[in-house]
Amino acid sequence: MAAQPRRTAPAKRPAHRGLRLHIQNAPPSPDGLTLERERLEEALSASTALKGQEFVISVDDGAEQLPPDLDAEIIITLAKIDVAKARRAVPDLKWVQTTFAGVEGMLEKLPRGFKVTNASGVHAEKGGEFILAAALMLAYQIPQFITDREEKEWRPLFGPVLNKHRVTILGVGAIGMAGAENLRRQGCKVTGVTRSGKVRTKLDRIAKLDELDDVLRETDILISTLPDTPESEGLIDRRRIGLLPKDAGVVVVGRAPALDYEAIMDRLDDGTLRGAILDVFPEEPIPKRGRAWKTPRLIITPHCSVDDHTVYIDRCLDIFVDNLERYVTGRKLKNLVDPKRGY
Amino acid sequence: MAAQPRRTAPAKRPAHRGLRLHIQNAPPSPDGLTLERERLEEALSASTALKGQEFVISVDDGAEQLPPDLDAEIIITLAKIDVAKARRAVPDLKWVQTTFAGVEGMLEKLPRGFKVTNASGVHAEKGGEFILAAALMLAYQIPQFITDREEKEWRPLFGPVLNKHRVTILGVGAIGMAGAENLRRQGCKVTGVTRSGKVRTKLDRIAKLDELDDVLRETDILISTLPDTPESEGLIDRRRIGLLPKDAGVVVVGRAPALDYEAIMDRLDDGTLRGAILDVFPEEPIPKRGRAWKTPRLIITPHCSVDDHTVYIDRCLDIFVDNLERYVTGRKLKNLVDPKRGY
Repeated sequence: MAAQPRRTAPAKRPAHRGLRLHIQNAPPSPDGLTLERERLEEALSASTALKGQEFVISVDDGAEQLPPDLDAEIIITLAKIDVAKARRAVPDLKWVQTTFAGVEGMLEKLPRGFKVTNASGVHAEKGGEFILAAALMLAYQIPQFITDREEKEWRPLFGPVLNKHRVTILGVGAIGMAGAENLRRQGCKVTGVTRSGKVRTKLDRIAKLDELDDVLRETDILISTLPDTPESEGLIDRRRIGLLPKDAGVVVVGRAPALDYEAIMDRLDDGTLRGAILDVFPEEPIPKRGRAWKTPRLIITPHCSVDDHTVYIDRCLDIFVDNLERYVTGRKLKNLVDPKRGY
Repeated sequence: MAAQPRRTAPAKRPAHRGLRLHIQNAPPSPDGLTLERERLEEALSASTALKGQEFVISVDDGAEQLPPDLDAEIIITLAKIDVAKARRAVPDLKWVQTTFAGVEGMLEKLPRGFKVTNASGVHAEKGGEFILAAALMLAYQIPQFITDREEKEWRPLFGPVLNKHRVTILGVGAIGMAGAENLRRQGCKVTGVTRSGKVRTKLDRIAKLDELDDVLRETDILISTLPDTPESEGLIDRRRIGLLPKDAGVVVVGRAPALDYEAIMDRLDDGTLRGAILDVFPEEPIPKRGRAWKTPRLIITPHCSVDDHTVYIDRCLDIFVDNLERYVTGRKLKNLVDPKRGY
């Protein structure tokens, strides 16, 4: 007897068709990184907490703006998109995760409460070690020796080891904390200057912004990890650069607008600073006529010293998947950016 | 009754009139250090083990040779004196302590058994930290960025942190050991190459000289702390420089004759080495026409990166007084130099 075909129930539309994720890649560039769909899928399937969760993933390969008619609840973006605009254009959008730490220019007109998370922490390992490298270069007079080489001058200097130098870190976020840990491992005494006066790592001294002038007067090596925010802009102005003792050194790994670069270069020119190691500049790339190419005792690392491209995408995915696990279970996300504060 | 004056025993000539120490300072130079009589006396009187011991101290302020008719049992020398000649000229001479580590040229024709001790270890703190500084500079591409700056080229490089680089240290004496400890603290895997295959610090691999070729093929950062001895001379010749992988880096803090500098500079010129950080040179100061002033990706630290003059004399006195305590109690001296081996 022929089997009676079983009447199948009409395909039930699942209550949740799958969480709609959108990957926004940045326009192509020589050193640009890309997040491919397969790589995200792999990271998602490796999470036991996300087991059973379905996803609908869309990908845009390279634009500063989102594709039109985008349908997504979550965007992970490698491009510096305008988040307020995205929020208006994508009705169901709940959360934007960036793959970088600095979100200046992305959050204008964005109301408080909308979830934007950044990749703060992704730079910590390399950035923290670079801080150690830069501090050592200053202790060992490398900026001076490079200038001496240009002049074919053999001028030995027999100064002390790093831990005889007083180090100050401005901004004790992920990079600053990692830097402090590296420096303290070499026996350095480290002062951290923060807005809040609170830090999550061990320091020898924690100073608040209103103590900044006094701290600068007692600093041999100044390291800025400050982001670009309305509050940090111009914080280390010409007057404050002038407070650094003779023979002090400067390192910048955050954002340039926090410091007066002309004032730093004036003190490098007149030899009252022992050197500067600058990873970021007011104009990048530095124009060919730029003063920085010719300033003595200045080492330029072209905005790359906190970025390790061999692990970058993996680290971003670690942050994103951890946050996604929090999102689906209703817990608080990590690395939430405050649009008013700017970081 | 008037007291009969007591017949005093004739003043007994002490069995030991005092240990005769001679300080031989070096000829004056701009960066020259001097050991003053008062400083030695202070160090001697601070030693409880030497309490009651008398000393007769003579000082010569600055010559490459000893004063004529010198009467001394022990010489502490800041000058590179000819020790075999001193031994013939100073009848009671038993021991020479130098204030430097490299004794090449001082021990010719000196028979085994005569006590010469060097200041090995005095450079360990700064030298070991400089090794870390130099390795970090290579990991962070500072030599390339310095050359790019000369060409006004903004060329970011996004490579990994230090511990992704395979580091090899040639010669694991006091400086090499301190360097290995600093590098391992940053998570580096360190291979040490020694003549004996024995080292007194923890390394990830210990290789003997007959494994050198294989080690060089697997080295990203090569650090030489080799002294100048008949055995080390020319050890890292052109063929061996050629074994280093493309993009490797080289650091030299020992003595120059161990390496073929022309071969290193050829590979810096053609861009197959990422950089070199050289503290010592075959001719010092480098002559104005010297190739090293113009070789790309080459950082020159003018023979000063292991010397910290703020503590140098104190460290030498620590070594000398420790040895003197051993000498007066008949124990074996530390830092004994083997004239045949040359260190």
